[in-house]
Amino acid sequence: MTADAPDRRPVRAGSSWTDTEVALAAWSSLCEPGDRVAGALVHALGAVQALDWVRSAVLGGVLPSLPVGPDDHARLARAVARWAGRLAGLEPERDLDRLARLGGRFLSPAGPGWPAGLSDLGVAAPFGLWARGELVQGRTGELAGALTRSVAVVGARASTGYGEHVTAELASGLADRGWTVVSGGAYGIDAVAHRGALAGDGPTVAVLAGGVDRLYPAGNTRLLQATAATGAVVSEVPPGAVPTRSRFLKRNRMIAALTRGTVVVEAAWRSGALSTATHATELLRPVGAVPGPVTSAASAGCHRLLRDGAAVCVTDVREVVELVGAAGQVDGCGREEQDGLTRLQEQVLDVTPVNRGSSVETVARAACLTERETWAALGALELRGRVRRAGSGWQKIRS
Amino acid sequence: MTADAPDRRPVRAGSSWTDTEVALAAWSSLCEPGDRVAGALVHALGAVQALDWVRSAVLGGVLPSLPVGPDDHARLARAVARWAGRLAGLEPERDLDRLARLGGRFLSPAGPGWPAGLSDLGVAAPFGLWARGELVQGRTGELAGALTRSVAVVGARASTGYGEHVTAELASGLADRGWTVVSGGAYGIDAVAHRGALAGDGPTVAVLAGGVDRLYPAGNTRLLQATAATGAVVSEVPPGAVPTRSRFLKRNRMIAALTRGTVVVEAAWRSGALSTATHATELLRPVGAVPGPVTSAASAGCHRLLRDGAAVCVTDVREVVELVGAAGQVDGCGREEQDGLTRLQEQVLDVTPVNRGSSVETVARAACLTERETWAALGALELRGRVRRAGSGWQKIRS
Repeated sequence: MTADAPDRRPVRAGSSWTDTEVALAAWSSLCEPGDRVAGALVHALGAVQALDWVRSAVLGGVLPSLPVGPDDHARLARAVARWAGRLAGLEPERDLDRLARLGGRFLSPAGPGWPAGLSDLGVAAPFGLWARGELVQGRTGELAGALTRSVAVVGARASTGYGEHVTAELASGLADRGWTVVSGGAYGIDAVAHRGALAGDGPTVAVLAGGVDRLYPAGNTRLLQATAATGAVVSEVPPGAVPTRSRFLKRNRMIAALTRGTVVVEAAWRSGALSTATHATELLRPVGAVPGPVTSAASAGCHRLLRDGAAVCVTDVREVVELVGAAGQVDGCGREEQDGLTRLQEQVLDVTPVNRGSSVETVARAACLTERETWAALGALELRGRVRRAGSGWQKIRS
Repeated sequence: MTADAPDRRPVRAGSSWTDTEVALAAWSSLCEPGDRVAGALVHALGAVQALDWVRSAVLGGVLPSLPVGPDDHARLARAVARWAGRLAGLEPERDLDRLARLGGRFLSPAGPGWPAGLSDLGVAAPFGLWARGELVQGRTGELAGALTRSVAVVGARASTGYGEHVTAELASGLADRGWTVVSGGAYGIDAVAHRGALAGDGPTVAVLAGGVDRLYPAGNTRLLQATAATGAVVSEVPPGAVPTRSRFLKRNRMIAALTRGTVVVEAAWRSGALSTATHATELLRPVGAVPGPVTSAASAGCHRLLRDGAAVCVTDVREVVELVGAAGQVDGCGREEQDGLTRLQEQVLDVTPVNRGSSVETVARAACLTERETWAALGALELRGRVRRAGSGWQKIRS
């Protein structure tokens, strides 16, 4: 399969798209990613009516009335001015057909299979997801399903051997454990993350800043083809769109929103990977940072996150799973749902007796933990119905 | 200067010691470091009377009455039993003379030059400090002064080239900036910390687990001599005392208490350096941990501290100074010398009333501290003559 070769799925005729899909596809061409005015307008009017409204505004030279105040009026006027230039060139059906010829699927917020996490971005959410690859070939919802159990593994383009080694270990370990690795398809850490996941026989998802017909950067074309072959390559901009610098930055919010948590492996003091971490934090997704030698500039951004308390220190795949597993209360599959305990909780549960109550001090000593850690773990275990208070102590509930 | 060579200070005649100093010296032989029962007894009765009390108890075969409840009675009985064996062999004046011949000085909590931080250990505080080296040669209080601006730099014996490099940078950088580096004189990180401080022309203080006449470990003899030549070598056990395993562990609380904060450079998953960090946390001193490669077992303990939120990530000397500098509100100059109070003690002193006694609970609540912290602070303030017991409560002494 080359970048533009047709996939096995038959081309869907342009007329088979709904009006809303076509309008959303148009919106994803009309404005730049993360355009909050566009998002608000589409949320308020619906994609089709919002597009009609813009057309009227541009053709009529005056903004049609909207239930908005004067401030928003000014913002709308500026937005219309910046959208106007692209209005004539919109060919959403051509774009949708182009995606279909790649065997891709256009997912829309209202339609089936939309990855729910993206909606957490609110008015900055993408209008749709232009996706291609194995996860959008079969049953609808496969991509969204894979993403309910996903981790973003991101980092510096200028990675070191150390960072690449750790990334490969993490990504393949995550894949082994049934987690989907999401990254940005860039050189360095991103590429190793995708490659590691593929090595672990897990699906991996690349979120591109340009169209999914352009497997950018060129040096990663084969890797991204392999990514699509078992996972997916997705973008919020239509086929043919160029990966500009600003689109790279906006793309990071999607990586954060699509996943359960973000792990930064190596990042310089100022690095795009840190913006992904910031977005994850804003979306209340947990962030992990892998420490490295303090003598390595490639780890400075990770240490910055740790110092700022913006990330938890993670050193192996078990700790990454603990980080993101703890985040999602309700989990995708069986055992995790049943157990889903942190290592600390497991340690405490192991030493809590079934037949009698045991004091926190005794449990702490037996588990080799501080009393504070033990209290926290017992509290969490109590909520999960695994232990109960017995007099002044604690007792395991027989399962 | 060799380990036992006389220093330039003339030998002080045994008779020049005060009764209290002799009794405290005796206590430091009589029981093991951190014996809380001994500490409580000495706090309650004073060192001389407490010693008399033990002598009566052992000679009479029955505990002389004390204003304590039955629980404490049982603990006292057990303590007397464990002290009894050493009572006959006590030769505190010989020990003090031995220290004097080394040019050392015995510092006691009631006497001048006592490093105030040690009193934060409450009843687990050492009875005195057996110190030798340049910082106890000249004017009294020089050692205590150097310690008001000090950082513990500790870590694994089994250090790596990476950890040693970072330690040397930190220690010399701290010395450059006028900070005293305190460590345990052990192989590995400790040794490099002392060496780095010496390279930075700063005083450094080694806290030994055995007597200061034994510069242990043997391989560090010259380093510890150099440490004494510009700084100090200190211990809570008298000359001749053997550095046992339990004394090493107890020694760590002194390193934590003597300093403004503790930095762990490299530490295995289970490491003595982590116990120093734990003590520092309990004493409300900030703890920093230097990250390293996650592939290095020598950094696993540091990463553990970071993961647990027990330490702040520090990567260079600037960040270490930020860490410990932020801890002491009152800095080296002026006010700190005059008062010599920790922040905790100041908080407690601020809310302790002058006109009437106030219970520990009330003081704790007003100072927004735990009762344990408040007890520790009140004990230290009492020793400094800043508060006194009033009925069942505490009262500030008008200054």
